[in-house]
Amino acid sequence: MPRVSQEHLDARRRQILTGARTCFARHGYEGATVRRLEDAIGLSRGAIFHHFRDKESLFLAVAEDDAANMVATVADNGLVQVMRDMAAHAHEPEVSGWLGTQLEVSRRLRTDPEFARRWAQRSEAIAAATRDRLLRQHEAGVLRDDVPIETLQRFLELAHDGLVLYLAMGSSVDDIEPVLDLVEETVRRR
Amino acid sequence: MPRVSQEHLDARRRQILTGARTCFARHGYEGATVRRLEDAIGLSRGAIFHHFRDKESLFLAVAEDDAANMVATVADNGLVQVMRDMAAHAHEPEVSGWLGTQLEVSRRLRTDPEFARRWAQRSEAIAAATRDRLLRQHEAGVLRDDVPIETLQRFLELAHDGLVLYLAMGSSVDDIEPVLDLVEETVRRR
Repeated sequence: MPRVSQEHLDARRRQILTGARTCFARHGYEGATVRRLEDAIGLSRGAIFHHFRDKESLFLAVAEDDAANMVATVADNGLVQVMRDMAAHAHEPEVSGWLGTQLEVSRRLRTDPEFARRWAQRSEAIAAATRDRLLRQHEAGVLRDDVPIETLQRFLELAHDGLVLYLAMGSSVDDIEPVLDLVEETVRRR
Repeated sequence: MPRVSQEHLDARRRQILTGARTCFARHGYEGATVRRLEDAIGLSRGAIFHHFRDKESLFLAVAEDDAANMVATVADNGLVQVMRDMAAHAHEPEVSGWLGTQLEVSRRLRTDPEFARRWAQRSEAIAAATRDRLLRQHEAGVLRDDVPIETLQRFLELAHDGLVLYLAMGSSVDDIEPVLDLVEETVRRR
């Protein structure tokens, strides 16, 4: 029996995450049954859950995949760029659907400590990247210095969360750019 | 048979809304079964649905009740005060639970046009109150005038939505006050 290459494993994992994201976006967390996950991914439940322990782990892996992308964007261009990217893709049903699925799990975040712990790792990675970026901007002198960096960070996170809720509820993003400009301007030195 | 007084009807309606809010907050929209609504309200399903057509109407009535309170606060003190009040009560499980229930229905907002239409009436009432308040502040000269009022309005709404998401996910509100100060300062004339 040939040894499965790392490359093959990675490709398989990628296939699973892509299909799972589509399935969660379309049907929500509860609605994404194992049968629907099989259909969307194109693999049997045996193959899927060989790579991921259960549906919760699969959901968290898709969310971690997002977080990794967000961390990269934050490091290069900041959290407002993440928001601009989100707004630019808001017309795609998969984007608002996936954001909606994240809202759907909010009850579990309050009632299931283990789930909350795993989710918090994801949030903490984004928060750390945002903090790093703000510290570098502070050193470069482009940040306002009359407000603690921690307050600026939480301000940006608040605006980001607002956009998540806004897009998940299917609201129109027409004319959101001037609002994001205002968010960005608020943290900068005038 | 004595005629039921308006006062009695109002009290009954109030009893239903209060119990329904507790039930939605505790169990979520899907989890708030008719049986649980009966228990939380202390009335039979016949009595409850004599006043409200169905569970969806009951949910929207609780949300409209919120909206009426928000509109009154916005008119007197602005949307940031609504946010300060939310943060002050965030430790109460009923508050985060009820906000979580609002997130839970986001999928229906995207997929059920009639539900979205009824929800939009609620959002529009709050948006109109925010706009009126900003116009009055503009006339009083306390608002910055280098950014269109519409942009300031959407900025405040974005921050508000961010706080809703934040609280619904059970995040801590420690040190949120300086962030709300920053939001308020951003729309004011310097």
